[in-house]
Amino acid sequence: MSYPLLETIKSPADVKRLSIPELEKLASDIRHAICDQVSKTGGHLAPNLGVVELTLAMHYVFDFGHDRLLFDVGHQCYPHKLVTGRAPMLGKLRQKDGLAGFPEPRESAYDLFSVGHAGTGISTAVGMARGDTLMGQGDRKVVCIVGDSSIVNGLSMEGINNAGTLNRQLLIVLNDNGMSIGQPQGALAGYFDKFRLNPSYKQFKDRAHEMLKHIPGGPTIEEIYHRLGEATKAVISHDHFYEHFGLLCVGPIDGHDLPTLIEMFQEAKEINRPVLLHAKTIKGKGFEFSEGDATTFHSPKPFRVEGCRVELQSSGRSFTSAFADLMTEVMTKDEKVTVVTAGMPDGTGVVKLIKDFPDRAFDVGIAESHAMDMMAGMAKAGLKPFVAVYSTFMQRAFDQVFQEVTLQGLPVRICMDRAGLVGGDGAVHHGFSDISFLRIFPKMAVLAPMDEPTFKLGLEFMRTYDDGASAIRYPRDSVPTPAFNDNPPAFELGKAHKLVDGDDLAILAYGFPANHALKAREELAQQGYNVAVYDARFAKPVDIELIKSLVDAGTPILTVEDHGLQGGFGSAVLEACNDARVNSSNIHRIGLPDGWIYQGSRSGQLAECGIDATGIARKVREILDDTAAAGASSDATNSTIRATH
Amino acid sequence: MSYPLLETIKSPADVKRLSIPELEKLASDIRHAICDQVSKTGGHLAPNLGVVELTLAMHYVFDFGHDRLLFDVGHQCYPHKLVTGRAPMLGKLRQKDGLAGFPEPRESAYDLFSVGHAGTGISTAVGMARGDTLMGQGDRKVVCIVGDSSIVNGLSMEGINNAGTLNRQLLIVLNDNGMSIGQPQGALAGYFDKFRLNPSYKQFKDRAHEMLKHIPGGPTIEEIYHRLGEATKAVISHDHFYEHFGLLCVGPIDGHDLPTLIEMFQEAKEINRPVLLHAKTIKGKGFEFSEGDATTFHSPKPFRVEGCRVELQSSGRSFTSAFADLMTEVMTKDEKVTVVTAGMPDGTGVVKLIKDFPDRAFDVGIAESHAMDMMAGMAKAGLKPFVAVYSTFMQRAFDQVFQEVTLQGLPVRICMDRAGLVGGDGAVHHGFSDISFLRIFPKMAVLAPMDEPTFKLGLEFMRTYDDGASAIRYPRDSVPTPAFNDNPPAFELGKAHKLVDGDDLAILAYGFPANHALKAREELAQQGYNVAVYDARFAKPVDIELIKSLVDAGTPILTVEDHGLQGGFGSAVLEACNDARVNSSNIHRIGLPDGWIYQGSRSGQLAECGIDATGIARKVREILDDTAAAGASSDATNSTIRATH
Repeated sequence: MSYPLLETIKSPADVKRLSIPELEKLASDIRHAICDQVSKTGGHLAPNLGVVELTLAMHYVFDFGHDRLLFDVGHQCYPHKLVTGRAPMLGKLRQKDGLAGFPEPRESAYDLFSVGHAGTGISTAVGMARGDTLMGQGDRKVVCIVGDSSIVNGLSMEGINNAGTLNRQLLIVLNDNGMSIGQPQGALAGYFDKFRLNPSYKQFKDRAHEMLKHIPGGPTIEEIYHRLGEATKAVISHDHFYEHFGLLCVGPIDGHDLPTLIEMFQEAKEINRPVLLHAKTIKGKGFEFSEGDATTFHSPKPFRVEGCRVELQSSGRSFTSAFADLMTEVMTKDEKVTVVTAGMPDGTGVVKLIKDFPDRAFDVGIAESHAMDMMAGMAKAGLKPFVAVYSTFMQRAFDQVFQEVTLQGLPVRICMDRAGLVGGDGAVHHGFSDISFLRIFPKMAVLAPMDEPTFKLGLEFMRTYDDGASAIRYPRDSVPTPAFNDNPPAFELGKAHKLVDGDDLAILAYGFPANHALKAREELAQQGYNVAVYDARFAKPVDIELIKSLVDAGTPILTVEDHGLQGGFGSAVLEACNDARVNSSNIHRIGLPDGWIYQGSRSGQLAECGIDATGIARKVREILDDTAAAGASSDATNSTIRATH
Repeated sequence: MSYPLLETIKSPADVKRLSIPELEKLASDIRHAICDQVSKTGGHLAPNLGVVELTLAMHYVFDFGHDRLLFDVGHQCYPHKLVTGRAPMLGKLRQKDGLAGFPEPRESAYDLFSVGHAGTGISTAVGMARGDTLMGQGDRKVVCIVGDSSIVNGLSMEGINNAGTLNRQLLIVLNDNGMSIGQPQGALAGYFDKFRLNPSYKQFKDRAHEMLKHIPGGPTIEEIYHRLGEATKAVISHDHFYEHFGLLCVGPIDGHDLPTLIEMFQEAKEINRPVLLHAKTIKGKGFEFSEGDATTFHSPKPFRVEGCRVELQSSGRSFTSAFADLMTEVMTKDEKVTVVTAGMPDGTGVVKLIKDFPDRAFDVGIAESHAMDMMAGMAKAGLKPFVAVYSTFMQRAFDQVFQEVTLQGLPVRICMDRAGLVGGDGAVHHGFSDISFLRIFPKMAVLAPMDEPTFKLGLEFMRTYDDGASAIRYPRDSVPTPAFNDNPPAFELGKAHKLVDGDDLAILAYGFPANHALKAREELAQQGYNVAVYDARFAKPVDIELIKSLVDAGTPILTVEDHGLQGGFGSAVLEACNDARVNSSNIHRIGLPDGWIYQGSRSGQLAECGIDATGIARKVREILDDTAAAGASSDATNSTIRATH
């Protein structure tokens, strides 16, 4: 397919040259280009279709080579990328060395922060605004675009509270699509709903001056008012929530009406105080399926349009689906179990639980800190709360796990989806730190399943573990079919489980990588190496008895984890050995390196980090060949290991 | 001194029996008891003096044996403790096995959560409200008391947004003293300022019904309204900020007027929807010095009232003071340096910097996440930002350090006061996890000074370190006088510094504990042991060359840190050895155990954890004696170590 007008856009300067009808044609090209690409490779669809006009209008009015554009979350950056010279890269969306699915400064100076977590836009924008002014570059305009679900995140709120004290230009564009990721949650969502597009203009002369008196900021506001264009004056919102923060609130306006958007941006640009422009948009705009079902089309897998229906490509049964089904069993069996998601009902599978257990399953919106504390409160009241969250977003609840959960000894259960490498979402979304930061806490049980049967056992362990908090991690991947063992033994705190025997070396794999280890074992067996594979199950506490027995037997150990090596599972093994005075000289670790892994396929990323079957087998050979070589030089009897292949 | 009425109060039931004049007398007793005690031992003063009437009125109306009372921050809990059977323990305030300075469930069932961090109250209250209802105990009333600086924290905001969706009783008491810890910051603070005590009553009949129409919640609100008492009706606040969250807002009322408070609580108790009661209080109320200078008397050291002036007991020069002075030098020398505190201008020393560099020093209020992101924005704009924060509160900015700082490669400098054991504040405030969670991030330089000269060098290293973020930690302690070396060599990334030579063992001490190690060395020398002491300086990267050379030389190593052993400095040493295939069998670690350390003196806590001079010397003897014993059995030549003493 071709997108004739889009193909002429080499930089934002080319956008500025277009007429309104041409901009509308460009918007259509952009929508088609995005739809076509996402249908092939998957990616964020509905969020991007919703901001096409907003993006074009911003680039039309501002000069983001000099001015600052900050995205909140960032999954709505595709139109921005397409008009900043990156249309030719669209074919490699979310692929290795291709176009990132989130803003990425490595790609373009038009991207300031690589982001993927919600709520950061306003705070970083405030910092850049203050920073530019201090650097003598106060003429650089700062614009931040943030969605309605993200603006109620605590970090956004803190940012807005500080933005209100700013004595210079700052434009916050509230992209209000009424349903940012799933359905908006919380009381403010209802408040936004009440807002209708402003009938405006007619009534404004009667109301405007009166309104301004109510806006914090005193006389300067009146002065500013007199300098405002008529369009802005007409849609100043009195009674707008964010007015309390000292922001001049404008709108709501129609976020798909290009002429109005351009006029509003042109006027807002000149206001030398913080302004919030409230734009109503339709998530998934312009594509009938995504308009009708923006949740499914938030970030779909590849799909095909077949006549009047759309088929989503399906892969195997995801850990997410398994979680939803297993938790259904848990919640059916035990009426004290409750569950919460922080704005990710679909991504975590909690959507099914909310439907089946409306009294005991909650979505609190993008508010991980609150979710954790709410569940701490429920635990205190005697319930058995589960928090379902992406590993990367758990980083937002670190302090809550410390104080409100573990310091109290409360048995809150944390279920972390997307733990480990996540593929196309890239560096902003890998779950690479959860083991490190959770095993800090006393009495925290840190565990992982390798497949669906062990997932079931892990959740059952957590349901009945009352001595402290517990956390389980599972990947953005399919459950292995068939599972290694349909009927594995129950989880016992701190006990690993032997999967296969072997004398040359023991692989101690934490969670899902145990499956890679089993494959590696097959390859190694063909090459004459005979290795054991253990499903480690627990990163806290680790199975030091097992480790000691292996070390005592002279068996080299390789720990494998889909997680950073700094402080991770292997590190826990080393610490346990050190504490127990077990010699760790022949223990080896593989996991994620001390660096960033960018977007690509999950399998490619696993290979890059050497934690797929091939990488594990390679590492095992290195260890055994080194051991053999060392043995050959000091002890001839051990070199038989090498001689067998 | 005696407090006759207070001495009769064995439980809240005794409060309920009092008349209003008696309650006022009790309030006076409580104020005197707290003032007398804090003057002797130090502690939180002004926050507690401000909530005496609020506390008495709450206990008068509610039954917190059954109902739920949640404190936000918790430093205002002393009056509550005094009327819940703990007056006899006041003499051991903040001391080991005495009365904790924060709510502490281990002391009393009247304390629900042990807290000390801001913003948790509402979220946990929402959880308990939902939990009690699910447990069939919806008759338990839930009350949360939160200050004006804490309620603008992001976590509070998330909690309120969820509270607004609650379909049952929940009372949030906003204790608005206009200056919770330092001065309130942010735009909302100005909004609160505009609120005056409600003239009420006269006007209310005209306004009340009109107001109610504006409050989200629809017809039920009208129904509720008809059931309200006249007092509440009179002070329903229209246009109150929190009304937007679906809360029925009442007040502001005078938080020191006992009859009004009691009447309001009695009525608010019966409202079966979330209510925010806005009470204006005077921080430090009733003690002329703390009323006049609530910041100094927020949490003073012991002091003496001498005629008409108060003398605060002073100890040595704190690391905080050193930081303020050293940063003054840095900011004078380098105009690109900026600094921020999150609501702790006094505690971090930033108050001095705000005074001297008003354009480049910021207080954003209790909003660590925002502070970190604002500084990320400043770094992006080309500045050299420093974040001054307590180690324990850095836990609130973990995700921001990940995404907005280190993933971007931005050189934000993190300066962590109160790192390690903190003494009287206890488990809620120890800085026990910062090394573990910061060394996860690529290119993060993690360092520590042992005294003022190295502190100066460390800050200078950070000022010029541009390859990534950096973080320095220092204790709630005095700088050693004199310093070990007035002119130590400059910091070099990943390089330790040898302080004293020795052959038997090398102590690798991270930060301040190097001073304890030097003292231990003296004791050991007298006993015939000759140990080297190194100032490790960096926990990331660690000095693997040094470690390797020590291991190669057969020298046992002891790592020492005032930090948790899980993932800490010693763990980093073990990992580095494992990566470099250096045998770590003769490396030993001491640090904080995998458990909680409760309030007491800092020196007592250090002793408890074995990381003071005595503990270090003891551990060194154990290691050397074991080594000698092992050597004696396997290799007679090594046993000379033991033979020398």
